[in-house]
Amino acid sequence: MPSNTGVAGGHVEHMLERYRTIAVDALLDDVPAGGPRYLYELVAEYPRRWGKGLRAALCLATCRAFGGTTSAGLNAAVTVELFHNAFLIHDDIQDESEQRRGAQTLHGEYGVGVALNVGNMTNLLALQRLAANRKALGSGIAWRLFEETALMLRHSLEGQAIEIGWIRDNVCDLDTDAYYRMCLKKTSWYTCIYPCRTGILVATGRHDAVDVLDRYGWYLGAAFQIQDDALNLTGDFDRYGKEIAGDLWEGKRSLILIDFMQRCTTDERERLIEVLGRTRARRTEAEVRWLHQRLLAYDCVESARHNARELAAAALREGQRAPGPAAETEDGRFLLDLTGYVVDRSR
Amino acid sequence: MPSNTGVAGGHVEHMLERYRTIAVDALLDDVPAGGPRYLYELVAEYPRRWGKGLRAALCLATCRAFGGTTSAGLNAAVTVELFHNAFLIHDDIQDESEQRRGAQTLHGEYGVGVALNVGNMTNLLALQRLAANRKALGSGIAWRLFEETALMLRHSLEGQAIEIGWIRDNVCDLDTDAYYRMCLKKTSWYTCIYPCRTGILVATGRHDAVDVLDRYGWYLGAAFQIQDDALNLTGDFDRYGKEIAGDLWEGKRSLILIDFMQRCTTDERERLIEVLGRTRARRTEAEVRWLHQRLLAYDCVESARHNARELAAAALREGQRAPGPAAETEDGRFLLDLTGYVVDRSR
Repeated sequence: MPSNTGVAGGHVEHMLERYRTIAVDALLDDVPAGGPRYLYELVAEYPRRWGKGLRAALCLATCRAFGGTTSAGLNAAVTVELFHNAFLIHDDIQDESEQRRGAQTLHGEYGVGVALNVGNMTNLLALQRLAANRKALGSGIAWRLFEETALMLRHSLEGQAIEIGWIRDNVCDLDTDAYYRMCLKKTSWYTCIYPCRTGILVATGRHDAVDVLDRYGWYLGAAFQIQDDALNLTGDFDRYGKEIAGDLWEGKRSLILIDFMQRCTTDERERLIEVLGRTRARRTEAEVRWLHQRLLAYDCVESARHNARELAAAALREGQRAPGPAAETEDGRFLLDLTGYVVDRSR
Repeated sequence: MPSNTGVAGGHVEHMLERYRTIAVDALLDDVPAGGPRYLYELVAEYPRRWGKGLRAALCLATCRAFGGTTSAGLNAAVTVELFHNAFLIHDDIQDESEQRRGAQTLHGEYGVGVALNVGNMTNLLALQRLAANRKALGSGIAWRLFEETALMLRHSLEGQAIEIGWIRDNVCDLDTDAYYRMCLKKTSWYTCIYPCRTGILVATGRHDAVDVLDRYGWYLGAAFQIQDDALNLTGDFDRYGKEIAGDLWEGKRSLILIDFMQRCTTDERERLIEVLGRTRARRTEAEVRWLHQRLLAYDCVESARHNARELAAAALREGQRAPGPAAETEDGRFLLDLTGYVVDRSR
């Protein structure tokens, strides 16, 4: 499997950076100057912090691998980056997260009211970028992209509802199937499937080929999410950019936690239910430390990383099998090498 | 001026109820059954509570007054009602409001995470209703309605940023001009101007006539908002449906409060700055009661009501002057009579 520690990894990071720069520059150009306080300058806040730019890169590389140009895919790439930033802002409010991309979360710094509004404005700018496809690509494709966007938003919001509901109801009897269903909706769709589908649509103008990378994107997104959850428990804050073990404070039902739920003793299970049953503010440092140590003692993180690597391998196979993206092109190669990157990355 | 205590008022309430029923029924039909917990059933929560349905009624009545049919305007009417409900959900989170439409706010009952997500899903359903105009009215008008919607959302979010910023920065030297500029963006645009513009567009298919009710809508919306602020301080909870004096707890810069800022003594001003400078949670009952009594003692509520009546009269004149809506039709009459209703209403 490709690895980002070698030549392929350096290539992946180089391509990510190239596409991220193109998309973020265009995104920042969209943000109006002036206006009221606490609005447009804060829309630019998360995009200006370092991010991987994975979604924009997936969209642009897919577009190019299917014969399209960077400029044809730019609106779609900026659209998904804007939606992503809006998700981050709202998600941080919902999870009461403290850190994002190496600094304080937006609501932590400016309050929930301001941050919620900034997230909404970021969504509006995404919609306006989406509508710009009408002039660039014609009305038919632009409507089709709108439909893809509505579908993506529906999956994402349903996935978010599932995850929040598990925390709210203190659900402690989840299995991995339930996790993967949630992850498909909450992460894979908007992070991988949607950027691939819109990239294909923009490049080919054909409606019938739009789904050829769906399986690739589904596995890639799941591998990405599981690695993210692993980094949350074992990563280095300076590189990862979020508070370590933040997911445990939030009670997030990651694959790692679900693995523990299924394998722990009756006593541990009772304590788990008690600890997770309290709100974030009423959880103690000692409780979170206990849970963190249990997850490591049971090798739940290692086990999840193993699953992530299997998913990445499956994504690679699906990518190789898919018609269209020529592996010999730089962008086709990038899409395949990404499968290694998402599980080897340290941030 | 028309008054809702007489024949015109009964007529207005009857028409509001008729259009509200049509729009809310169609809205509820859009809400998917099933899905994850804490999502679709909660999207239906605020619409099912009693509301005036002002925005849907304005849209449908304008559409009909300009020669369109109810069914042609239905998508636009449902769209604005959905956006309105999403605004309410998010606005209640931002203001930390406790009551809405006679019951607990959504975030009060289910938490901020769930409510924020439900607001986002409500926005998505609004966008999907908007897109349904493509099939019903053709691509050209559907894009035009999309542009109108983007413009409306921009004004609303900027207005919200202004209002939140004033509270956050504890701005206490506002004048009425600043208030009216904020109110145009935050309230008038989406409550009155947008429904009228979309109603005209749907009815006529013409781009050049879209703004003929802008001034009517601007004055009507301002009158509506000021009456709302007055009801917040003097209303009856059972009819008004929000906690009385909630705006003072929230530190909301209403015209009433701004009037007091401009007329109070130096000592009162110092105390005002101190009271408003604290967060909602750290404000005491006694402080809010003091402020409430000061506003009444200075006749700030009566003075604001006077302004609202003048604005309503101006809206009536603008409505009578506008080309298109025939006053002799039931819908034209309704648009004019609404100017009396918004300032005479008790809820």
